Amino acid sequence: MDVVTRIEQALDGAVREAESSGAPPRLAAAMRHAVFPGGARIRPRLCLAVAKACGTEDYPTAFAAAAAIELLHCASLVHDDLPCFDDAAVRRGKPSVHRAFGEPLAVLAGDALIVLAFETLARGAVAQLPALLLCVGRSVGMPFGIVAGQAWESEPRVDLARYHRAKTGALFAAATVGGAAAAGVESDCWRSLGEKLGEAFQVADDIRDVAGDPDDLGKPVGRDAALNRMSAARELGIDGALDRLDLLVAEAADSIPRCPGGAELRTLIRLEAQRFLPKELVRVAA
Amino acid sequence: MDVVTRIEQALDGAVREAESSGAPPRLAAAMRHAVFPGGARIRPRLCLAVAKACGTEDYPTAFAAAAAIELLHCASLVHDDLPCFDDAAVRRGKPSVHRAFGEPLAVLAGDALIVLAFETLARGAVAQLPALLLCVGRSVGMPFGIVAGQAWESEPRVDLARYHRAKTGALFAAATVGGAAAAGVESDCWRSLGEKLGEAFQVADDIRDVAGDPDDLGKPVGRDAALNRMSAARELGIDGALDRLDLLVAEAADSIPRCPGGAELRTLIRLEAQRFLPKELVRVAA
Repeated sequence: MDVVTRIEQALDGAVREAESSGAPPRLAAAMRHAVFPGGARIRPRLCLAVAKACGTEDYPTAFAAAAAIELLHCASLVHDDLPCFDDAAVRRGKPSVHRAFGEPLAVLAGDALIVLAFETLARGAVAQLPALLLCVGRSVGMPFGIVAGQAWESEPRVDLARYHRAKTGALFAAATVGGAAAAGVESDCWRSLGEKLGEAFQVADDIRDVAGDPDDLGKPVGRDAALNRMSAARELGIDGALDRLDLLVAEAADSIPRCPGGAELRTLIRLEAQRFLPKELVRVAA
Repeated sequence: MDVVTRIEQALDGAVREAESSGAPPRLAAAMRHAVFPGGARIRPRLCLAVAKACGTEDYPTAFAAAAAIELLHCASLVHDDLPCFDDAAVRRGKPSVHRAFGEPLAVLAGDALIVLAFETLARGAVAQLPALLLCVGRSVGMPFGIVAGQAWESEPRVDLARYHRAKTGALFAAATVGGAAAAGVESDCWRSLGEKLGEAFQVADDIRDVAGDPDDLGKPVGRDAALNRMSAARELGIDGALDRLDLLVAEAADSIPRCPGGAELRTLIRLEAQRFLPKELVRVAA
């Protein structure tokens, strides 16, 4: 069974826990709507690729970490789409959670997915639980996680690097650090890979928002300009942003710590990074 | 140092982690606003009283559990007060978080407090971490925790017992079960005490909403009627609700499992339950 199918199974198993008999049915449906069908599942795939490169034999722990990270990503999308933030009507090609289920259930679905992520870790990650909990908590909470990143949008003065590192980089870093921690090896040295990939993903997202096709992306484009948000593509132009993306991916690949599957992981990272952009925007490597 | 002071210190220590240098300052301020000054801190005091009655010697674990439970309670108040739920302007005698900081930071403060609760557990509760994590997660998430309780308000048909058990009982149950788990003893038998006290607290809250003084309570009264919410006081009348409260407290005290400090805990529970109501509403025991 391929890794993507196993990630979907791990997520399905987690969401089923929330859907047990006796649960309020509409909130259960809102949670499933938020998680399925998914996007590219980039973060959990990265987590599992790092665990494998580190020679893990503890797949239940690695899958628990991967699923927890994806659940937190889904939670952040649900709350980011709320009327008081982006007021997004569409996500992954279908109505956003608050459009489909109303604002109260969207707030609650995000909350419930955060809790479910930590429960998923607690159920699956016995030996490495404290380390994984702190790694994952750091990537979503205050002062440096996704929530902090989103909060920079409410500050009168924004530290741009800190904003991107928290809003996008932190969960990618949880994927790489968490993958190594799940494998039971020294994990802090894996942070740089996650942060570089997160920054690369953010640049790619900025490019898609300027030059992508909304039908392919499953969400509207031009949001950064409409919301006057910071964007590499607006700041550097498309070509400048593509250069920056190439540089970040190269730096990411170079930052991979010594590990049994290092060479394979380096190849995978370069291939995967091409999927950050729609085909027509990918440049043929020089 | 008395237990209330130590609870405040534990909460302050947790919130300080979120306020580290480099955090977005307004979200950090919103989190502190949500946690301080607190209410009666009933849930963490209950958690510590149970841990003590079970003969705990692991106070760091018990305080981590108590602080995590109170942080989750504060998070639930912030989100419950949002415009899409109760739209409450006042909480604990001052502006609610969304009135003081705006809706985006109120959503994020609730999210960040949920994450902080799990991090607080991970930092303080080493030996009992998996059991405490699952106990606390169950009390706030789906299918039976606070979030599920709140979600019953979005269902066309409500199971009233399930609604109250999830919305109020679950976190009281986490306090009693978590207190026993922190002490390292069999903990499931402590659930009934928490659920009964939670139900008693809910009845007292219904009575306060009908007969209380908004200045004493630090929040408006008459909200249940205004929002057409289920309420024991509206259903049974004040006297009927006071009878129900007495019965629940007696059942709670009788449900305390055999433990070293059982007699003392029983006395404490009866005394504490009187504080559920303002003085003028407490009836002298027959």
